[in-house]
Amino acid sequence: MTHEFEVIHQFFKPLSHSKQLCASLDMGIGDDGAVLSCRPDSQLVVVTDTLIEGIHFPYGTDAYDIAWKALAVNLSDLAAMGAAPGFFSLALTLPKSLLSAKNSQAWLKSFSQGLADLAELYDMALVGGDTTHAEHLSITITAQGWVEIGQAITRGHAQPAEDIYVSGLIGEGGLGLKIVQAQTDVVADCNEHPAVIKLNRPHPRVALGLALKGVASSAIDVSDGLLADLSHILEASEVGAVIETTAIPVSAAMQQYLQKTEDWMFPFRCGDDYELCFTAPSDKANQIAQLAESLGLSLTQIGKIHAEAGKLTLLKSGHEIKVQSTLGFEHF
Amino acid sequence: MTHEFEVIHQFFKPLSHSKQLCASLDMGIGDDGAVLSCRPDSQLVVVTDTLIEGIHFPYGTDAYDIAWKALAVNLSDLAAMGAAPGFFSLALTLPKSLLSAKNSQAWLKSFSQGLADLAELYDMALVGGDTTHAEHLSITITAQGWVEIGQAITRGHAQPAEDIYVSGLIGEGGLGLKIVQAQTDVVADCNEHPAVIKLNRPHPRVALGLALKGVASSAIDVSDGLLADLSHILEASEVGAVIETTAIPVSAAMQQYLQKTEDWMFPFRCGDDYELCFTAPSDKANQIAQLAESLGLSLTQIGKIHAEAGKLTLLKSGHEIKVQSTLGFEHF
Repeated sequence: MTHEFEVIHQFFKPLSHSKQLCASLDMGIGDDGAVLSCRPDSQLVVVTDTLIEGIHFPYGTDAYDIAWKALAVNLSDLAAMGAAPGFFSLALTLPKSLLSAKNSQAWLKSFSQGLADLAELYDMALVGGDTTHAEHLSITITAQGWVEIGQAITRGHAQPAEDIYVSGLIGEGGLGLKIVQAQTDVVADCNEHPAVIKLNRPHPRVALGLALKGVASSAIDVSDGLLADLSHILEASEVGAVIETTAIPVSAAMQQYLQKTEDWMFPFRCGDDYELCFTAPSDKANQIAQLAESLGLSLTQIGKIHAEAGKLTLLKSGHEIKVQSTLGFEHF
Repeated sequence: MTHEFEVIHQFFKPLSHSKQLCASLDMGIGDDGAVLSCRPDSQLVVVTDTLIEGIHFPYGTDAYDIAWKALAVNLSDLAAMGAAPGFFSLALTLPKSLLSAKNSQAWLKSFSQGLADLAELYDMALVGGDTTHAEHLSITITAQGWVEIGQAITRGHAQPAEDIYVSGLIGEGGLGLKIVQAQTDVVADCNEHPAVIKLNRPHPRVALGLALKGVASSAIDVSDGLLADLSHILEASEVGAVIETTAIPVSAAMQQYLQKTEDWMFPFRCGDDYELCFTAPSDKANQIAQLAESLGLSLTQIGKIHAEAGKLTLLKSGHEIKVQSTLGFEHF
């Protein structure tokens, strides 16, 4: 195992370049801090997420996927704000067991490749960070992006009578975790299952977030479970909502799972979707339909906002159903 | 133990205000990300540091001191760049043992107070972060500051014939750690020892860093040991240096320690000083002396830069001494 400066030089310094930052990243990895020029017409958006082995991803997850996910969950937060990805810092705590392992170089190569591949998709530069070691693997990324002044989409502006939408499929990350944990699925290699792929290598809805500026009145990324995350919008906007549960878009595999387990609330509770949940006035419906088509991404209306602050009503084919809690997956 | 959102609301949301950010922090804690306005005449400086219990601070360190130090080490990096502190994100991983402990609320109160007190000194706002739990306590802070365009002090511009300076006393953090670890000191409560205070609650040299813009040609903060950190300047600037070891400013307690142990290299190797090491042309000597007086902080010339890239010579009263390695404390 080589020491900190060699690790940074070999594996992470190559990630410190991006097209958009060529002119503005005057000093990146290799000094006490990174120096960046700001965009005169934009505000800075700052997000931070930590992933810990055994808590936020299962033991045995590929190094490539861990790195991908650590950046993706941050990009998902930027997407929910309507921000264009800019740059990120990496605080990487490696487990002591890896330091002495024969495959440490291969692990670091795979990890840095996962980070590089996702960063390249969005032309993001790694501008700095810290490497440490401890008992368990832990990754904290602070990602930063840009949004035109005053254009950030927040949680606090949902209005009564607006429509509530979600992107993509709900509950896939949670289903993927069930498959990995229980190996109950019949497929030979569970890593090939679409839900496991979505769990390990989520695609943040960056393009959708950018396109929702001026369309959505509020947005949040679905990371802790749809109902928990929607609750944050309701709380911040001081409104309520009615959700038609049969409208929630789920995969065929999820439908099978629900019929087998009768755990109907599962897709609403489980985390790790990294889809966007957003609200918009009804007169934006056509624009949103066109957006779905142009992005090749389903955008499904699942309910409506109403004025009764904090009240969340779930319907099943129009009839109210009782739920014990709207809280989703709690990592903490 | 309350859950994540209550912890954030109770202990950390009060830190999301600052005078300078009133107008620009449009959205702080409580959304997917923070939205901040940039300063039109400035560049952004981004630094990240992780502290892990048992590695970067001893077990048993006060929660207040842990929080103070976690922010201070980041401020020290900003200081070394000549940047004015702006705002920071906190990724806090709490040990599971604390979650169930009776004193968890008291611990969090003390931790958030340490963070608040240092942040208030520099009018910094906490703009976001993440709270998680794992086996061990770990804190990653990404701090950001501002520097006038093109004015950042880097490691790469030291020139032959320039003077090399350090601020304050060297080796105090390392001496503090020796005292805590071995309890060899005769004082009743070792926490009152100046070296232990400096270890636990370092004062980053922010005012010095700001004043060195246009004066210093290069700077670094002394965090990994003076010789290791000076080596980074030599490497980045492609120069060499001669250091007069008897000129290195050490405390009376350190002099006693050195005479007892004869470990003469100790102050040059040990970390956790959070002083600044910088270079400047000789014609700045008067200006630097005045600066020391106005800041009430010693700034000591310890050697000179020369043209022979990578060569670091140590003198003792003018005679060359041999050292096995210039590397300092390696956390990794």
